[in-house]
Amino acid sequence: MQELAPVFRDRLLVSASAREHYGAAESWISAALPDAVVKVRSTQEVAQVLAICNRHGAPVVPFGAGSSIEGQVLAPEGGITLDLSAMDQVLRIGAEDMDCTVQCGVTRQRLNEELRDAGLFFPVDLGAHATLGGMASTRASGTTTVRYGSMRELVLGLTVVLPDGQIIRTGGRARKSASGYDLTHLFVGAEGTLGVITEVTLRLFGIPAASQTVLCSFADLDAATGCVVEALQFGLGLNRIELADDLQMQAINGYCGTDLPVGPTLWVEITGSAPAVAHDIALFQDLAQDAGAVRVELATTPDDTARLWRIRHDALYAARALRPGIKGLSTDVCVPLSQLPACIAAIKAEIAHTGLMAPLMGHVGDGNFHLVLLFDPANPAELETGMAISRKLVELALSMGGTATGEHGVGLGKKPYMQAEHGPALDLMRRLKCAVDPSGIMNPGKIFDL
Amino acid sequence: MQELAPVFRDRLLVSASAREHYGAAESWISAALPDAVVKVRSTQEVAQVLAICNRHGAPVVPFGAGSSIEGQVLAPEGGITLDLSAMDQVLRIGAEDMDCTVQCGVTRQRLNEELRDAGLFFPVDLGAHATLGGMASTRASGTTTVRYGSMRELVLGLTVVLPDGQIIRTGGRARKSASGYDLTHLFVGAEGTLGVITEVTLRLFGIPAASQTVLCSFADLDAATGCVVEALQFGLGLNRIELADDLQMQAINGYCGTDLPVGPTLWVEITGSAPAVAHDIALFQDLAQDAGAVRVELATTPDDTARLWRIRHDALYAARALRPGIKGLSTDVCVPLSQLPACIAAIKAEIAHTGLMAPLMGHVGDGNFHLVLLFDPANPAELETGMAISRKLVELALSMGGTATGEHGVGLGKKPYMQAEHGPALDLMRRLKCAVDPSGIMNPGKIFDL
Repeated sequence: MQELAPVFRDRLLVSASAREHYGAAESWISAALPDAVVKVRSTQEVAQVLAICNRHGAPVVPFGAGSSIEGQVLAPEGGITLDLSAMDQVLRIGAEDMDCTVQCGVTRQRLNEELRDAGLFFPVDLGAHATLGGMASTRASGTTTVRYGSMRELVLGLTVVLPDGQIIRTGGRARKSASGYDLTHLFVGAEGTLGVITEVTLRLFGIPAASQTVLCSFADLDAATGCVVEALQFGLGLNRIELADDLQMQAINGYCGTDLPVGPTLWVEITGSAPAVAHDIALFQDLAQDAGAVRVELATTPDDTARLWRIRHDALYAARALRPGIKGLSTDVCVPLSQLPACIAAIKAEIAHTGLMAPLMGHVGDGNFHLVLLFDPANPAELETGMAISRKLVELALSMGGTATGEHGVGLGKKPYMQAEHGPALDLMRRLKCAVDPSGIMNPGKIFDL
Repeated sequence: MQELAPVFRDRLLVSASAREHYGAAESWISAALPDAVVKVRSTQEVAQVLAICNRHGAPVVPFGAGSSIEGQVLAPEGGITLDLSAMDQVLRIGAEDMDCTVQCGVTRQRLNEELRDAGLFFPVDLGAHATLGGMASTRASGTTTVRYGSMRELVLGLTVVLPDGQIIRTGGRARKSASGYDLTHLFVGAEGTLGVITEVTLRLFGIPAASQTVLCSFADLDAATGCVVEALQFGLGLNRIELADDLQMQAINGYCGTDLPVGPTLWVEITGSAPAVAHDIALFQDLAQDAGAVRVELATTPDDTARLWRIRHDALYAARALRPGIKGLSTDVCVPLSQLPACIAAIKAEIAHTGLMAPLMGHVGDGNFHLVLLFDPANPAELETGMAISRKLVELALSMGGTATGEHGVGLGKKPYMQAEHGPALDLMRRLKCAVDPSGIMNPGKIFDL
């Protein structure tokens, strides 16, 4: 702290309010405050902070928009929280190469505003207002991952500050490379435990010429997922395939004033050239009918389309409105698509015994879904019940070849499941951590304990 | 050896002929023989060999089909070559999940035969008859990478034997995961220097309903790549975009008896639904005309299509036939697409001074191209000239933000360029190597020296 103060002056924050702001979680996880916050402006400043902290063995917690929900930005061992949000420059847009390089603090919304004039966009669209550095660090994905992939597929290269302050570049601008170890993927998803990502090079895509949306209601979940499997096998130009369950639809009808069937429902967006979209959307409607859809609504105007997606976007608010004043614990398992109906049926049977309300939304093309377990924070028994359901669901998903977290990451919340998910591979992760961060300063206590 | 002999009996080979067979390269790199070869049949046997070799500090060189061309399977420090080709079982095909798990010795051709009845295929199609374990280890790609990605994007999970004989599983069957470090990508492209990949879980795809091919000749390279950039920005359903230069076209005309224009030429394959392909191929022809194509030939029958792709497949034989009895040194740089014309023009200017013949083929959608530098092995000066051109080309590519190797890997051949390409990141690779393989037994001397 003594070494940081003269360098960062009023960008070193030690007030209780600042520490509380940065050490609070978006989720059910309790706050854990850093000793101080440093607002950095450049890769060099990050290197300066890390070199100092490494000398003193002081923990460093990278912080972007603070939207992670598994406690990734909490500071359970104190230390310095590194606020990277001022590193918000779009450094380069390569229209011909359909790539760009941004500083870590640029949000995906900002990037897409800057790209629009070039007819390009960056597709990963999670719900949160997140920074691209944070999204890379947590291996984020979203509704369009079924088409374009997640941060795993779309990050081409990184600038990273290692724990000792050394600056490295990984990957590059070539679309592919077989040159040496894949350091980019080592840092994507490492949640800041191996170093600080300060610049990100990303793949971009042309904005599709045409797009159509259809809303399909089914009598049961098997029918809905069966329809999705067929659509994927046909290679339709699926851009988004979002699923809601009956309780979620009931919540939506209540919140949005709609009168949609209360059963498993798919939002399907198909994009591409106009003839391709026309063909694929017609084929999808046929597949849905064959699968026994009880209602198929094709959006025929831009207003219609906007209305259908607004309903989807309001789903979380609608879910929370089922029990006003209540908190939500969001699950995040991802399983092979063939296992999805069995997985959902089994956990719903468990939930039915508890009396908890748990509406479901899913990125069904990826086999990833979220239950929002609604609990009263004033009632510890409800949180405990929610935690038990969450644990049961992870066990189910792992037994089906799935993962504890499709897109939210591990942080503190999913740490208890890492041994069961990875087995002896977890020891290898620990060896990598020790090799890259021998002093153990980077985001300590996250993902696994040493 | 004393410990291996009683276990593997006649599957332990020590004859000079066996050692020569396994220690010879597909390329210009001189042979380097192992002390012995062990033919393994299971992950457990691999673990057994590694545990023994680790105790004795004996080098282990994994060997699949032996088709790598940068010396990856040579044994410059002797030791044991591990022949994995008998591990050739397709373990599981998940039609609904569009994934499969195979043993490392399964070739891509074998896998695709087994998939055909399910209407599925695995898209990475390099020229060689390669195993999927070897393809994962070298981060291989091919002509369809522009559409489906390389092994980097398509491997979902691995079974790996670590140098001490421990068996781990990485990744899994979930389509995406944010759970812990990305160990899968650590081993994909590590060329067997961190452990032995024994099982691979892969993404599969539905065989597209329709496909059309067009051959376009251009007056200059800028016109050809400009056309490709536009097609990519439009998001056309490009499955393959292959480029040949004037000398390569001259070679093809000579070898295949064709009369095609001797200028930069694109083979373009578009796949998808019938209406999508019809739309996209028409649009591509327009783009090609606008870009100044001098000849556009649309294949209208299956025979036509087969003929055009046969010409493409014969390109390497045609190139070699330019100077019969001669060897070829293949370059492999990959650069941002915007830099491709400048990169090719600059290296062609260098080649012009030397008198070497160097026809060019490229996966132009990825910015990856190969010059086959034809040299007489009996004339050391020619090899030296070829090496100098290869070095110059890598320097050019790196100065343009590219990579020394798009798909062939590093092995021994590209090792001299790793410091220039990766800078301080190369030290991090070395630290990872030491953490995972502290005895240094795995494929020593490849990618970098310690």
